[in-house]
Amino acid sequence: MRILILGGDGYLGWPTAMRFSAGGHDVHVVDNELRRRAHAEAGTDSLTPVLPLRERSDAWREVAGRDIGVTIGDLTEWEVVERVFRAFDPEAVVHFGEMPSAPYSMKDREHAVFTQTNNVVGTLNVLYAMRDIAPAAHLVKLGTMGEYGTPNIDIEEGFIEIHHNGRADYLPFPKMPGSMYHLSKVHDSHNIHFACRIWGLRATDLNQGVVYGIQTDETLLDDRLLTRFDYDDVFGTALNRFCLQAVIGHPLTVYGKGGQTRGYLNIVDTLRCVELAVTHPAEQGEYRVFNQFTELFSIWRLAELVQKAGAECGIDVEVEPIRNPRVEAEEHYYNAAHTKLLDLGLEPHLLNETLIETMFATIERFKGRVIADHILPRDRWRPGVHAPAP
Amino acid sequence: MRILILGGDGYLGWPTAMRFSAGGHDVHVVDNELRRRAHAEAGTDSLTPVLPLRERSDAWREVAGRDIGVTIGDLTEWEVVERVFRAFDPEAVVHFGEMPSAPYSMKDREHAVFTQTNNVVGTLNVLYAMRDIAPAAHLVKLGTMGEYGTPNIDIEEGFIEIHHNGRADYLPFPKMPGSMYHLSKVHDSHNIHFACRIWGLRATDLNQGVVYGIQTDETLLDDRLLTRFDYDDVFGTALNRFCLQAVIGHPLTVYGKGGQTRGYLNIVDTLRCVELAVTHPAEQGEYRVFNQFTELFSIWRLAELVQKAGAECGIDVEVEPIRNPRVEAEEHYYNAAHTKLLDLGLEPHLLNETLIETMFATIERFKGRVIADHILPRDRWRPGVHAPAP
Repeated sequence: MRILILGGDGYLGWPTAMRFSAGGHDVHVVDNELRRRAHAEAGTDSLTPVLPLRERSDAWREVAGRDIGVTIGDLTEWEVVERVFRAFDPEAVVHFGEMPSAPYSMKDREHAVFTQTNNVVGTLNVLYAMRDIAPAAHLVKLGTMGEYGTPNIDIEEGFIEIHHNGRADYLPFPKMPGSMYHLSKVHDSHNIHFACRIWGLRATDLNQGVVYGIQTDETLLDDRLLTRFDYDDVFGTALNRFCLQAVIGHPLTVYGKGGQTRGYLNIVDTLRCVELAVTHPAEQGEYRVFNQFTELFSIWRLAELVQKAGAECGIDVEVEPIRNPRVEAEEHYYNAAHTKLLDLGLEPHLLNETLIETMFATIERFKGRVIADHILPRDRWRPGVHAPAP
Repeated sequence: MRILILGGDGYLGWPTAMRFSAGGHDVHVVDNELRRRAHAEAGTDSLTPVLPLRERSDAWREVAGRDIGVTIGDLTEWEVVERVFRAFDPEAVVHFGEMPSAPYSMKDREHAVFTQTNNVVGTLNVLYAMRDIAPAAHLVKLGTMGEYGTPNIDIEEGFIEIHHNGRADYLPFPKMPGSMYHLSKVHDSHNIHFACRIWGLRATDLNQGVVYGIQTDETLLDDRLLTRFDYDDVFGTALNRFCLQAVIGHPLTVYGKGGQTRGYLNIVDTLRCVELAVTHPAEQGEYRVFNQFTELFSIWRLAELVQKAGAECGIDVEVEPIRNPRVEAEEHYYNAAHTKLLDLGLEPHLLNETLIETMFATIERFKGRVIADHILPRDRWRPGVHAPAP
């Protein structure tokens, strides 16, 4: 199958590209190297050294004997999107190509406007390219569980049957996202749903939880194939950051009370979920949503797991709650459905101490690269106001 | 009260500005004259002659003895928004300042991207200006009933109590908008709700139905104070267009089966609703939604009303169903709550033959200005595909 990977230079995009290439598919990746530039501007970097995209593609050819095509270009430029769609004629489009950071989007007005414009316009361009150039292609779009927020009812997979005044309808699940970035994904979801309803496109929106992990089958083949591992205050995510903090002897930075509960999954399960979505496409005209995570954890529980794994390895891990820079509920109801990917055959790699210890070992190999002064949060959701101390 | 009117050169913005000014408020309007440029590009125009904004403001000073301040500028430019907020320090912000046309947004990719970028970025700039410069101001934002689409359950005012698996929450009403323009308003609604939740701003989102009518108390004072009246395929709306078609002897263009049911209201009720929202502001941190219409009509029923009013005036009005350029349900359930503005004191001016006959008379005065070759739709929601003939 001809599979186009948008955002193919990223934490998940690059390993996904290799996975599909290893599986015998014809893969082309597009990326504008936004993350590399954002890191350079902020003075931060990936823990793992990541080669330039073309060099990774060259290394992949050498190691695996297969080609991954590369376009360095920006999805907000129609000429780029049109050219790639015409040249490659994709059968599936896996869309990771967005600004993915909530803290980045909440820095200030410019970052908010950039995040929403970048994500919404890039995705609109992809939808128009599909409509006009590849109408039978299947869009697999990375959304986020953060679109839902933390409602006081069970979260369903994208849609919910609502009974009201004696009538019923199956409608989009209400959205209460918690950052300008998460809002951009809600906007995308509405736009994609529309494109399926009105133009008959087909799409799977993967509302993904927080991903953890460093290695996949393909990155393990050669260090030149490594994917990025971010741990800084802007691009780092909870468990990855905790593991790094444990290794470098930094207290685990739990925001506020630590009761924030979210869905999590291993990076190898992300790759499997995307593969399941691509190989079991939506019907023409269908917009479907899968909640893509395997387990729910509170931040506090994650910190405990890392602490326990640390003890097993002889690392003394401290946990230090800090004032929450975000505006969010720190104790709340949270229960979210996630059966659709299991029904398609997902066999989750659940989180355990062994996995955390493996992450410790990889982090240990690269810990000389750690830039320790960007681990604490610098930006607050509500300027001038901190949440009360936990 | 210091009231800032964004989009103050428009069909509703200009009469709203005069109404508040007549009521003794200090009014400043901002407009980038987008509508005037869009008409010039398309070769269309308002039926009524509309003076340039500064000349209307001069005429208002002469007629009413009161000032309306004018800024010609674009809300997507932060410098414009910041300067106006700092100079005027608004207590209420009435935001009509968006690209308001569904057909315009559905022309092609460029128009879709422009509409969403223009509306989302302009509104984000307003939200940041409120956060940083006027945090106590009350935002009154014009949304649209079109955000809801046509669900098979009763539409509530912005939020709905959902009971699910033994729990309940009061959540944003699910949105199924029918055009790239309507989607932009859904994006705005999510962004504004967020700003209220996270930053404690206060806002009223007026989900408005289709407005009809030409004259208000203030436009009647002097022809130099007239507001625009659009009847073309891009900016015209159902009843206004039917009235014009009746006067010029053009068959009424009912799209498809004509069973499309929507909420409607008289322009004088729009002014009253905005006034009620401004004088009964939301609480700090509150995001509330009012459904702003007074009656439900199907397109077919509207055509019949115009036909009947025509007969009273000796005009023979034909109705001619045409293939629907849009992709929409032509027969559907539709019932929408609209009690919140009534509770605040709205006394609706309901549609009747007398009102239609008054509209006929005003249209008759200006019918020499009609450009008849842009009455039929030129753009289709799904290129290459027409809905089946009715």
